Amino acid sequence: MNRKLRMGMVGGGKDAFIGAIHRHAAFMDGKIELVCGVFSVDPQTSLESGQEYFLPANRVYTSYRDMFENESKLPDEQRMDFVSIVTPNHVHFEPAKLALENGFHVVIEKPLSFNMEEALELRKIVQSSGKILALTHTYTGYPMVKEAKHFVESGKLGKVRKIYVEYPQGWLATPLEQTGNKQAAWRTDPEQSGMGGCVGDIGTHAANLAEYVTGLKVTKICAHVNIKVENRLLDDDCAAMLEFENGATGVLMATQIAAGEENNLKLRVYGEKAGLEWLQTEPNTLLFKPIDGPAQVVRAGTGYLSNAANAYIRTPAGHPEGYIEAFANIYRAFTSAVYDDKKGSLKPLEQYDFPGVDDGVRGMAFVKTMIESGKSDQKWLNLEI
Amino acid sequence: MNRKLRMGMVGGGKDAFIGAIHRHAAFMDGKIELVCGVFSVDPQTSLESGQEYFLPANRVYTSYRDMFENESKLPDEQRMDFVSIVTPNHVHFEPAKLALENGFHVVIEKPLSFNMEEALELRKIVQSSGKILALTHTYTGYPMVKEAKHFVESGKLGKVRKIYVEYPQGWLATPLEQTGNKQAAWRTDPEQSGMGGCVGDIGTHAANLAEYVTGLKVTKICAHVNIKVENRLLDDDCAAMLEFENGATGVLMATQIAAGEENNLKLRVYGEKAGLEWLQTEPNTLLFKPIDGPAQVVRAGTGYLSNAANAYIRTPAGHPEGYIEAFANIYRAFTSAVYDDKKGSLKPLEQYDFPGVDDGVRGMAFVKTMIESGKSDQKWLNLEI
Amino acid sequence: MNRKLRMGMVGGGKDAFIGAIHRHAAFMDGKIELVCGVFSVDPQTSLESGQEYFLPANRVYTSYRDMFENESKLPDEQRMDFVSIVTPNHVHFEPAKLALENGFHVVIEKPLSFNMEEALELRKIVQSSGKILALTHTYTGYPMVKEAKHFVESGKLGKVRKIYVEYPQGWLATPLEQTGNKQAAWRTDPEQSGMGGCVGDIGTHAANLAEYVTGLKVTKICAHVNIKVENRLLDDDCAAMLEFENGATGVLMATQIAAGEENNLKLRVYGEKAGLEWLQTEPNTLLFKPIDGPAQVVRAGTGYLSNAANAYIRTPAGHPEGYIEAFANIYRAFTSAVYDDKKGSLKPLEQYDFPGVDDGVRGMAFVKTMIESGKSDQKWLNLEI
Amino acid sequence: MNRKLRMGMVGGGKDAFIGAIHRHAAFMDGKIELVCGVFSVDPQTSLESGQEYFLPANRVYTSYRDMFENESKLPDEQRMDFVSIVTPNHVHFEPAKLALENGFHVVIEKPLSFNMEEALELRKIVQSSGKILALTHTYTGYPMVKEAKHFVESGKLGKVRKIYVEYPQGWLATPLEQTGNKQAAWRTDPEQSGMGGCVGDIGTHAANLAEYVTGLKVTKICAHVNIKVENRLLDDDCAAMLEFENGATGVLMATQIAAGEENNLKLRVYGEKAGLEWLQTEPNTLLFKPIDGPAQVVRAGTGYLSNAANAYIRTPAGHPEGYIEAFANIYRAFTSAVYDDKKGSLKPLEQYDFPGVDDGVRGMAFVKTMIESGKSDQKWLNLEI
Repeated sequence: MNRKLRMGMVGGGKDAFIGAIHRHAAFMDGKIELVCGVFSVDPQTSLESGQEYFLPANRVYTSYRDMFENESKLPDEQRMDFVSIVTPNHVHFEPAKLALENGFHVVIEKPLSFNMEEALELRKIVQSSGKILALTHTYTGYPMVKEAKHFVESGKLGKVRKIYVEYPQGWLATPLEQTGNKQAAWRTDPEQSGMGGCVGDIGTHAANLAEYVTGLKVTKICAHVNIKVENRLLDDDCAAMLEFENGATGVLMATQIAAGEENNLKLRVYGEKAGLEWLQTEPNTLLFKPIDGPAQVVRAGTGYLSNAANAYIRTPAGHPEGYIEAFANIYRAFTSAVYDDKKGSLKPLEQYDFPGVDDGVRGMAFVKTMIESGKSDQKWLNLEI
Repeated sequence: MNRKLRMGMVGGGKDAFIGAIHRHAAFMDGKIELVCGVFSVDPQTSLESGQEYFLPANRVYTSYRDMFENESKLPDEQRMDFVSIVTPNHVHFEPAKLALENGFHVVIEKPLSFNMEEALELRKIVQSSGKILALTHTYTGYPMVKEAKHFVESGKLGKVRKIYVEYPQGWLATPLEQTGNKQAAWRTDPEQSGMGGCVGDIGTHAANLAEYVTGLKVTKICAHVNIKVENRLLDDDCAAMLEFENGATGVLMATQIAAGEENNLKLRVYGEKAGLEWLQTEPNTLLFKPIDGPAQVVRAGTGYLSNAANAYIRTPAGHPEGYIEAFANIYRAFTSAVYDDKKGSLKPLEQYDFPGVDDGVRGMAFVKTMIESGKSDQKWLNLEI
Repeated sequence: MNRKLRMGMVGGGKDAFIGAIHRHAAFMDGKIELVCGVFSVDPQTSLESGQEYFLPANRVYTSYRDMFENESKLPDEQRMDFVSIVTPNHVHFEPAKLALENGFHVVIEKPLSFNMEEALELRKIVQSSGKILALTHTYTGYPMVKEAKHFVESGKLGKVRKIYVEYPQGWLATPLEQTGNKQAAWRTDPEQSGMGGCVGDIGTHAANLAEYVTGLKVTKICAHVNIKVENRLLDDDCAAMLEFENGATGVLMATQIAAGEENNLKLRVYGEKAGLEWLQTEPNTLLFKPIDGPAQVVRAGTGYLSNAANAYIRTPAGHPEGYIEAFANIYRAFTSAVYDDKKGSLKPLEQYDFPGVDDGVRGMAFVKTMIESGKSDQKWLNLEI
Repeated sequence: MNRKLRMGMVGGGKDAFIGAIHRHAAFMDGKIELVCGVFSVDPQTSLESGQEYFLPANRVYTSYRDMFENESKLPDEQRMDFVSIVTPNHVHFEPAKLALENGFHVVIEKPLSFNMEEALELRKIVQSSGKILALTHTYTGYPMVKEAKHFVESGKLGKVRKIYVEYPQGWLATPLEQTGNKQAAWRTDPEQSGMGGCVGDIGTHAANLAEYVTGLKVTKICAHVNIKVENRLLDDDCAAMLEFENGATGVLMATQIAAGEENNLKLRVYGEKAGLEWLQTEPNTLLFKPIDGPAQVVRAGTGYLSNAANAYIRTPAGHPEGYIEAFANIYRAFTSAVYDDKKGSLKPLEQYDFPGVDDGVRGMAFVKTMIESGKSDQKWLNLEI
């Protein structure tokens, strides 16, 4: 199909953070164009944003319901192909549902939904709709994360025994939500975020990364969930001891009150033969630590990587790729699936290697179990979907 | 002007490296669309590339002369606004000249031209044409390089005394040009690269970075220019001792035969009160080293940066931006100038902070002086434009 | 008192690891000489070791009981002043008890004893003897650890909220104890190590470091204690969630099966105003992370450190000091106390800033609580002494 | 010979820097004891220093001439075995000469002497005396430097092509010598230091390290030698381009005015097959960079090192050794030679792997050539001994 895919957007007004990232990521590879959107609950902001994105006024909507209905009636050569939903958590489910029901593919920010019920319902809708849903667990888009997964799969670590994943941030070390900061406000508001604060915002990323790389599911959780900043309504700090399905154990730490930390997601996996380490702030490096020789600094863009990583690399070694490229890789994989779908040759989704609705359901189950464990006197709770 | 800028391209076929980077960079911010191009000397490759980029066949050309002529005759609402020239060095001058003479703005890969004469001629053409030319000295697009420049300008280092700039690569440590590698082939061919190999390819980046950050011009050079790999026709290694206009001294090292190195451009500047250090492979960090206190890890995306850096940052701290974003920043600044030009409100070009034709002329003078010094018994040669 | 202090030694034969470290550390500052010892349970090894250390045969003993008795009868100008006990854990209590009862000061490897009962008993003996006991929790000897403690004490972090301490090693990732490795053999043997393996060997170091730097006591533990290598008799891996007395929470991770890891003790402390980070493998650096400015790289040997650190620094900045120097710092502080004692001017022991019997008792309580928690279904256990 | 070696000392009073380092280093391994010394030109300081080092008053001298004469008359079982000379450069030659002539072995701080003439004369005296002289080019004592040398020797790099060695310090970025700082005062005084300031103090270390690791001699120098701080009498900054005997080329940078730098000696060597990198501030790591695979982090204390390194390692991996241990390794090798000499089984000195008088002569030739090149209009000067 010799044209760009046409993207609509829910959320992502001109001053929003994650919406801008989605656009950078979607545009980078030259295969997606923005054709319509409802960029804000405020019609004026939505309109101004649309102008800034060079959209004609008739493709800037004031409600997503209108957008899906109108777009679905447009002729083939104009109609949007998919929608990116980049609103706060409480406005994930409904637009996603409507989009799918109107025949559009969906890209959606994590977490999948506001609560577990929505997640399970959405999974059903995806399945019945036959449409494609991608969930932007961005960090799995990094080439060296894919290389790490490849290392585990190909047996370079031996049987996995120990998994440490941590995600310290510091931006909520003060009561930022009381200063007019919008990012902080909705993330600390149970009405918009759901039952998890830190757990949902970044804990889910950490859990997803650990499961993605190791291929092992968390089975049991013993969590410590805290509110560290006075008067905050949702957790801003958590830790958990984990059990995995093969008998591996692990520790997950996520916090938003680690003063001075930025966005230091880090994964360490240890097997019987070797360990590996990956740090999001230096994403082009994967440390591989064999038990009996020097650690190896495996680097993006080099000639010795697996196809799993190479498919997502744009630059030669030493030309750093970053967060936006990782994001763009999710879009790249999703785009590939959508093109195949349009050609009628869609393969099983797991072959496209992007996070989808099942990851979203697991994420919500993780949040639920963490929060429950945090309140429980019982040491271990099962993580069940 | 409420539309995207329309880009044409010379070079950048589907298998080329730097052309793809230009497109990623140009597209990322959503303000540029590719509308036409001549992507290869081979018409078939050009056509296939155009298809891959979703261009209509009538906008895929077989010669840049044709392209400029045809495009200049198109109506306002279709005609390209600027051309990106991403061919090897010997095909920089003519397309740039023709583009300017046909009324198009130009983005051009460095070095500006094949030799000094072309560079001087091109400068004249730019000046007489009134068009805008941006030269992709990518590394000056990094936000933390801009912050470094800001540190020097605002006096945080005191008077600059010592400048070390180094650029070790290892990819030409073997005779790669004899294996069919196109990148290696043209870069080591005097007919395509000009008088400098390593000096022109990466030495110019190093010199440009040092001058950009410190605001000081190199005045004298004492160079050592070497061919390390047998049968190679151009230098693959160089070093130079430098004098700068304020009395500062420096050392420049650039090599392509440093086995195992990737693309490790690094700048260190020392003043009377402090030093600073920036490394391209970890571009979101600027080390600031005051004489009497702990070194400071200045980071992209934080709240304490200058406007000079902030204008070029897309993500919050800890979400790494990389090489493509730096590249996109050159395009961002260039785009801003072009929009202003279209509105009739173009400011003096230095206010847009992107490398232009003067940097290109200096770069060619640097190459010439380096090569001459390498062959000379005289210790110091003046770097004159 | 114008002479070196005279050290005896229990353990530390010519092939032992930690005994050699004790001697390097004790000798480095030129204030301690080795005068006698029982270096092995094997008399021949003990004798040969003594010869290697240039001791006369009559000062090389075959039992510590003999040594203490004989030495106590020697004239003042010959008699040892203190004994260093560097045997496996099950041979800590008795020699320490006998030494103290015979009037000798004691340096003893951690953990203090084989079990809690011995620890409590030893504390009584120390108190009643009036002698000085130093426990080599080496890591608190590092100058930058002392600077970290100073940072917390002086309020630079504000109220401490979160503490992460981790100690990954990889040397027991294989069943090394079955290969004749002595270090591995006794450390994995409950008859020699006591109830804790990894918990006692390195978990105690981690807990001690966290409490030392923050000045906060662990009050509650929720632990996960594992045996990862088949047929091993003691834990080789543990993790715990912690509560501290001021409401701070924390996570402790210690493992000996992290394939490829060396000895990567790391402490991170986050307060309301700033965080800090210290890593044992790069011990001359302390990262200080204020909430509103660049992280600071605080370095040993610089001019801006506190007296707390400066008293333990031998070299100017950039001349790295290491593990043996940290060890020597414990001896330096202990030596200072012994000299004062001999002069009759001993100050309260906490002013000398070395770990002592109370730290040892806490360490044994930590081991006990960790092991119990690991077996318990109850989520949180109190850490009580 | 079953006793410690007996050391005398010239210089190294209680407030001196490098003398204290020599003592820590000499004592650490338990094979050397200090028996006498002249610790200062001021008799009172010398006496007080001797007391602090627990020496009897009759072994504390007021002139080195007296010391050598008296000591040489003492009976075998008391007489010092060797002297460590730790005075400023202008007081190296005479005490060394007298010591050797009186039958004592010598350890001497670098540079070997005040000027080239003294160096050549001293070499003759060493040769005729049959005594052993060690020169404390400390950095060659680091185990990972020895491993680096082993890597080159064993062919892991292939033919060496490029050598970068740099030594930036910042402590003389201000006119510290005018503030009463003794270290700064003598180092910037041509009457005490000789013809080189920075060149002699640290440039020689850099050159020695490069030659030691690569086994290649510098043959030609093109130098830039600067005084950066006003009114200073000796160079505080230098750089040089180098040629080596096998055709390799290199760059040497040494400066004492790099504001904020500590003591960052760094060596990089690139061959046809691989590169290596070693940094003094993180001395337990050697980076090995093969041309076709991941860089390897070769670490001290691991099981895979060569004997060359292992002979100088005291701790297992992850227990950092530092500058004092490197210094102690020079003493360790020297001690080994002296013991063999006493047993009548001295091997050729190069087998003991410590720097000696030939290194000292080369060092002085390096200083002389650098200074001459700095003043010369001729591009390249030969480095001749």
